[in-house]
Amino acid sequence: METVERRGGGIDAFACLDEERQDRTGYPEVVYCGGKTEDQSFAIIRALHERGVPALATRVAPSLAARVLSAFPEAAFDETARTITLGVFCEPQNRQGLIAVVCAGTSDMPVAMEAARTAEFFGSVVELVCDVGVAGIHRLFSRLSDIRKARVIIAVAGMEGALPSVLAGLVSAPVIAVPTGIGYGASFGGLSALLGMLNACAPGVSVVNIDNGFGAGYQANIINKLGSA
Amino acid sequence: METVERRGGGIDAFACLDEERQDRTGYPEVVYCGGKTEDQSFAIIRALHERGVPALATRVAPSLAARVLSAFPEAAFDETARTITLGVFCEPQNRQGLIAVVCAGTSDMPVAMEAARTAEFFGSVVELVCDVGVAGIHRLFSRLSDIRKARVIIAVAGMEGALPSVLAGLVSAPVIAVPTGIGYGASFGGLSALLGMLNACAPGVSVVNIDNGFGAGYQANIINKLGSA
Amino acid sequence: METVERRGGGIDAFACLDEERQDRTGYPEVVYCGGKTEDQSFAIIRALHERGVPALATRVAPSLAARVLSAFPEAAFDETARTITLGVFCEPQNRQGLIAVVCAGTSDMPVAMEAARTAEFFGSVVELVCDVGVAGIHRLFSRLSDIRKARVIIAVAGMEGALPSVLAGLVSAPVIAVPTGIGYGASFGGLSALLGMLNACAPGVSVVNIDNGFGAGYQANIINKLGSA
Amino acid sequence: METVERRGGGIDAFACLDEERQDRTGYPEVVYCGGKTEDQSFAIIRALHERGVPALATRVAPSLAARVLSAFPEAAFDETARTITLGVFCEPQNRQGLIAVVCAGTSDMPVAMEAARTAEFFGSVVELVCDVGVAGIHRLFSRLSDIRKARVIIAVAGMEGALPSVLAGLVSAPVIAVPTGIGYGASFGGLSALLGMLNACAPGVSVVNIDNGFGAGYQANIINKLGSA
Amino acid sequence: METVERRGGGIDAFACLDEERQDRTGYPEVVYCGGKTEDQSFAIIRALHERGVPALATRVAPSLAARVLSAFPEAAFDETARTITLGVFCEPQNRQGLIAVVCAGTSDMPVAMEAARTAEFFGSVVELVCDVGVAGIHRLFSRLSDIRKARVIIAVAGMEGALPSVLAGLVSAPVIAVPTGIGYGASFGGLSALLGMLNACAPGVSVVNIDNGFGAGYQANIINKLGSA
Amino acid sequence: METVERRGGGIDAFACLDEERQDRTGYPEVVYCGGKTEDQSFAIIRALHERGVPALATRVAPSLAARVLSAFPEAAFDETARTITLGVFCEPQNRQGLIAVVCAGTSDMPVAMEAARTAEFFGSVVELVCDVGVAGIHRLFSRLSDIRKARVIIAVAGMEGALPSVLAGLVSAPVIAVPTGIGYGASFGGLSALLGMLNACAPGVSVVNIDNGFGAGYQANIINKLGSA
Amino acid sequence: METVERRGGGIDAFACLDEERQDRTGYPEVVYCGGKTEDQSFAIIRALHERGVPALATRVAPSLAARVLSAFPEAAFDETARTITLGVFCEPQNRQGLIAVVCAGTSDMPVAMEAARTAEFFGSVVELVCDVGVAGIHRLFSRLSDIRKARVIIAVAGMEGALPSVLAGLVSAPVIAVPTGIGYGASFGGLSALLGMLNACAPGVSVVNIDNGFGAGYQANIINKLGSA
Amino acid sequence: METVERRGGGIDAFACLDEERQDRTGYPEVVYCGGKTEDQSFAIIRALHERGVPALATRVAPSLAARVLSAFPEAAFDETARTITLGVFCEPQNRQGLIAVVCAGTSDMPVAMEAARTAEFFGSVVELVCDVGVAGIHRLFSRLSDIRKARVIIAVAGMEGALPSVLAGLVSAPVIAVPTGIGYGASFGGLSALLGMLNACAPGVSVVNIDNGFGAGYQANIINKLGSA
Repeated sequence: METVERRGGGIDAFACLDEERQDRTGYPEVVYCGGKTEDQSFAIIRALHERGVPALATRVAPSLAARVLSAFPEAAFDETARTITLGVFCEPQNRQGLIAVVCAGTSDMPVAMEAARTAEFFGSVVELVCDVGVAGIHRLFSRLSDIRKARVIIAVAGMEGALPSVLAGLVSAPVIAVPTGIGYGASFGGLSALLGMLNACAPGVSVVNIDNGFGAGYQANIINKLGSA
Repeated sequence: METVERRGGGIDAFACLDEERQDRTGYPEVVYCGGKTEDQSFAIIRALHERGVPALATRVAPSLAARVLSAFPEAAFDETARTITLGVFCEPQNRQGLIAVVCAGTSDMPVAMEAARTAEFFGSVVELVCDVGVAGIHRLFSRLSDIRKARVIIAVAGMEGALPSVLAGLVSAPVIAVPTGIGYGASFGGLSALLGMLNACAPGVSVVNIDNGFGAGYQANIINKLGSA
Repeated sequence: METVERRGGGIDAFACLDEERQDRTGYPEVVYCGGKTEDQSFAIIRALHERGVPALATRVAPSLAARVLSAFPEAAFDETARTITLGVFCEPQNRQGLIAVVCAGTSDMPVAMEAARTAEFFGSVVELVCDVGVAGIHRLFSRLSDIRKARVIIAVAGMEGALPSVLAGLVSAPVIAVPTGIGYGASFGGLSALLGMLNACAPGVSVVNIDNGFGAGYQANIINKLGSA
Repeated sequence: METVERRGGGIDAFACLDEERQDRTGYPEVVYCGGKTEDQSFAIIRALHERGVPALATRVAPSLAARVLSAFPEAAFDETARTITLGVFCEPQNRQGLIAVVCAGTSDMPVAMEAARTAEFFGSVVELVCDVGVAGIHRLFSRLSDIRKARVIIAVAGMEGALPSVLAGLVSAPVIAVPTGIGYGASFGGLSALLGMLNACAPGVSVVNIDNGFGAGYQANIINKLGSA
Repeated sequence: METVERRGGGIDAFACLDEERQDRTGYPEVVYCGGKTEDQSFAIIRALHERGVPALATRVAPSLAARVLSAFPEAAFDETARTITLGVFCEPQNRQGLIAVVCAGTSDMPVAMEAARTAEFFGSVVELVCDVGVAGIHRLFSRLSDIRKARVIIAVAGMEGALPSVLAGLVSAPVIAVPTGIGYGASFGGLSALLGMLNACAPGVSVVNIDNGFGAGYQANIINKLGSA
Repeated sequence: METVERRGGGIDAFACLDEERQDRTGYPEVVYCGGKTEDQSFAIIRALHERGVPALATRVAPSLAARVLSAFPEAAFDETARTITLGVFCEPQNRQGLIAVVCAGTSDMPVAMEAARTAEFFGSVVELVCDVGVAGIHRLFSRLSDIRKARVIIAVAGMEGALPSVLAGLVSAPVIAVPTGIGYGASFGGLSALLGMLNACAPGVSVVNIDNGFGAGYQANIINKLGSA
Repeated sequence: METVERRGGGIDAFACLDEERQDRTGYPEVVYCGGKTEDQSFAIIRALHERGVPALATRVAPSLAARVLSAFPEAAFDETARTITLGVFCEPQNRQGLIAVVCAGTSDMPVAMEAARTAEFFGSVVELVCDVGVAGIHRLFSRLSDIRKARVIIAVAGMEGALPSVLAGLVSAPVIAVPTGIGYGASFGGLSALLGMLNACAPGVSVVNIDNGFGAGYQANIINKLGSA
Repeated sequence: METVERRGGGIDAFACLDEERQDRTGYPEVVYCGGKTEDQSFAIIRALHERGVPALATRVAPSLAARVLSAFPEAAFDETARTITLGVFCEPQNRQGLIAVVCAGTSDMPVAMEAARTAEFFGSVVELVCDVGVAGIHRLFSRLSDIRKARVIIAVAGMEGALPSVLAGLVSAPVIAVPTGIGYGASFGGLSALLGMLNACAPGVSVVNIDNGFGAGYQANIINKLGSA
């Protein structure tokens, strides 16, 4: 059965690093640890590090985080965001352009923080505005002047996902909406919030996958850079 | 094949009027014309009229309306609401208790008017507040003092269906939400608005079927009567 | 990464209490513990308590309950309903207006009790009528005179969710329907009961989210208060 | 392109009559005209007739009916049921065993009549009980003694499809449930009634496809014959 | 909070036995343990036993079984079927009329055995024919003469659920189809088999809920009794 | 608004012919007329013809067919298959390797013929075996020796889509399954057949899109050529 | 029935123009004609025009277009895009910043043109790149240098919706993806493309509603302006 | 309860080996361990082995593997593929015809390896090409010359499932697509990838069930053998 045998002990047996990605798109590959074994994720993070590529890993389980931190003490783990960073893509002092990450409820924090950490890693300044869902809309209005300072807005919400609709009617910045799986039974794992955001009655909203904070942070950062370049 | 043959020429062949309904629930039967043939709907409306029962018919096609009006000139047809009334359940001057029918967009008017006509027929006073969707939320705020006068609120919206969530956080009255089938592709015939309303992040909202203005108007009226009795 | 760093040690890092909620809607905020960490839930309950706001918390896990009871022995935990109350919004002797919580099967009890505890907390009198599903409809009829005394009815059912349809044809009070996730495979986590209730053939029914006993209890209470005010 | 060319002018080009079906199952093939062209349906009905097989055709459009009646004046067309019969499988005087076809609303009549005509054709006696939906449950009770005389019950309903659940708790006969596509938006073309019936809380119910009156009539008849043989 | 407090220590707090069920339908109530706590299930089984009602319980977890067997050594537990019987409704020697339980694969056995145990309990003779799915259709043909002896057939299958379609074209007995949740990803928990069975191209099939072996066994038994009475 | 203005009068304004397709894949582009305007389809067919590319067009409406035949009398239109061919990719006498197109019912013929015409156009010999659905499985067995001569089998079926499962257990050739939208309500436009085929319990089946006869014919032909090359 | 009677003859009876929208968001309201009656759409377009607001109307039926052009000959109608513009928001010579509208197939043109016309109206320069779907990926590569000049990319595709995934891995600009309803049966009205785009494996993609060209054009323009301001 | 009692201690109680399968289809039965108990799976593997049938078992849990390896040390277990082989169907040196198993991401490896092991077992040569998803399409191009050597291609992908569409436009070999459940929320357990693959815009693709690597490997092998025979 030699044909499908794994070649050597490196990551080539299961991964093919996209080393030209930064040339094509401006940003290096990110490691999505969901669905990978801990061994695979660790090996890919190490390989990127060895090649000098600043690494951002998402959906990092605590046991993987412990292993990475043990091997590379300079790595940083955010427990809420479930992210690890190893190496620096953009020095904090060089970050430019404000992104507001606005989240509807406390339960949406992990997704919001994943978005925030991603945007920061790639060079944006991030302001987190949390627990301002539309059920108590004055909370949103009281933070509106802060939100209006942002060049791009990420709106994170579960349940009916109404936050982006309301926000987009109040601001001039583009809104990237992230549905989350928070809610009672008929939220159907975030489907309800996803459909709500896709059907936002206010223009200026586009949507990423359920719980995909990383995707929102990435997209918001490249939009932000477009503006600040 | 005599066993299943229709008996005589009356409506007994296809309908069984619920004549004790008013005794049990306080209100007479209503004629839902959707799915019935024009002959069946006409015969049922006529039969109710002959028995002295004030009739409200919903989902009335223009051709049925013409036939009813021709036979019973005292009937009233609302083209937008697609309702016919024949006979009076509650004299206009005896209507009590204000219901606000708040609708998000112009396209939601037929459903909103069906709700309004139903609630009026059964004895409520109705105020229509239209085109105040959350995309331009100041429009809603500018009408809020009017809406707050209502004992019960019906909120009609398509697309993401966010109006009830926002409203319920601003008022003390119960909100009956009606999703409509208005919207781009992923509104999926009103499913998006339905899920949005069921997942409303503000308490105080309950929901009826997609495009079911009648159901909302009926439920709002009995709630209103509970209060005003 | 200072921008998104949490501010201080208070709940401001992840929550924004809606302190004006009672002014706008007549009732204080309720703590939904689903999706929050135990630390977050505890901190919010404590914060409400410290500000003198009577607290109702739902979806309380046993470990959170133990922690709250240990810190605040005056708190009350209902294991079936999964609710905690800390402080009193309405003294038991001041409760007014009867709400009947009617549930189809024994398995629907947790949702029914969440509804009951919510309505009681906010000031209604509650009567629980359990295991009267339509498979043995005489059980429902034998309790009907009790149910007819209620100003508002909450009907809780899984499987096909037929209870609200049958009930609404027998009573004059508004029926708030709560679908539950109980049933064989094609109940699809409560979707079957939800659709059944939305399509109730009897008018006078509106529906809340799957398993959302809290939402039903809240809505029933404000309807009840409308009547008894 | 000769290989796929149609062979001759007979029905062999598009149909393969199942001539041994009666030997295997006791009943001849039935012609489902949905999806077939009018020419195909006509040719198959004619072919069965020429071979002396009594024919039942379902989902017959008026134009096909006119053509069949013109060619075979002895054929019988039921406009509501959309069925044609040509030839006699069981003489009316030889029909045995009562099947009750119970339908919830007037709009369900076409499906109920398709069931009735099918069961009659194959030799059952059929009693139609219409418009006895659960919204006014006394209508069902007033017909219950009639229904209890039946050996098999077919229950036809749209909307929430609760009729079979209630019926099955009241009778000893097996209930074959037929969901229909009648209802407001979230009936989703009969999906709501279908799920409701599959989740019937009372045992003794099995279900056929949406609007499949034929399937219910056929199944009820073979169950009936099992008993009356 | 006395109003909703549980009354006494009996099962009245959470259950309402349907003691007249046997009078109405010919068979006593069955205990569905899914969704009930172990305490509730045990109490209901004991209560039935104390009232002399022969008890069949389904979806019995091993720990509940151990508890029942410890308290009532005469009870019988079938581990595959997950059923307990306590008391005898019909003595084995009095069982009449053969039901064939035909199942497509080894993995469908628990559902098939639940159907078998139910039909036996209520008085039918049951023959189990297992692992005869349509992928190797000769296996089905080799058992066909046995299957044709049955008065009623229960067909249990997962995956595409084709067994009932093929069977119903080969026999004269009614086929009750039970979809199961067995299969690769797009079986979607049994939805695929359910839809396949509802769309069976051969008449003579009706369907119960996914994994609902009990429902199939119950329905098959009353059909069988109809015939053998 | 010049930037998005259409360039000239050619097809470049709306189409980009994939002229190197034959080099890469061995076969030229095919024109799918669904969703295109009649003008667009005609222009593309003409453009291919002018460049000497043999053209196969699918989903051709009768009016488009008339226009093409009028302009290019040598074109061939198959009304059932809804295909047009203009030019010859493989002379009929050079076709090699037998593909059996097996279809379950008469109503599935349009999809089956689309598959047949596609496979023939690209050089396969096709045998059509129609109306051999599993409801009367002897019909399939009586044609089995013919079917077993084929190198590849296309199985076309609606309703429960069981034909491929049964076939694949009886033959050694690969089976390409095509679900169709034929059936009662819960066929849901072919979803039922699609899921049935994806869940086929016999290995050796792969599936194309609902009603995609073209896709099946194309895939079957390249498999066939692989073998006969 | 005066309370719900329409007030006067103006658009106030059914619409509430959001006149402060431009102040809040930088852009005036757009008229979505889907779901509105022709009278309502016309009245709203006229009202905007009378108040000097440059109007863009989408989903304009030909009969409405004729009526608007007859009343306002200076209006411009794009038949493919189904848009009307009346008045000028940004003079063509003042447009800045390139947006590439890339569409997968000819059938996607109406949605692509709606996006293009919207972005142009609000001040962007638009380049249309059509029929470059991934089935012939060299077509996309041959246009890549053009596409890379754009500041923002709109990717329009039906079927599997793979275009945005491939594009986003090749460019540095943000990609706004628009799913369309083009495809065979299991495209389910665009659901397939929508899910494909939401699950894009390349970061840098966000998604708008099915067929919502307007939403994509609007969002792309505000992103573009962010950059070019 | 003797009728349904298990017969003896052999596998006849729950399984019916399809011993003639190889005669009919050319290949022996394969043991799918999903849904079977460990005892059942072990007994079936042993029974095949005792009859001299080379056994391939899929979805093998580690504990079952340990038991098989302990009993039959010559068995081979692949932990990633979750397969066991016991006995040899085709000696490695006799394998013929190359199949390329191309997978989009590291997380898709278990499914890809199941496909690879299956195809090898039945006699094909397999080349694994992993982590070449379309997000970095140059990775795919760099391996294209290898892939083009294959007679059949298996494409394994989760998320949007675009890999087969792109591949099929670049090669002449048939592509068998396998969707996997890898991805963020709206991948809905592989539904997104499944729909994407069914809607592949390039012809030459057919699809197997979600995560069904076995089905793909089996189908690819029989296609390969067709060619190499």
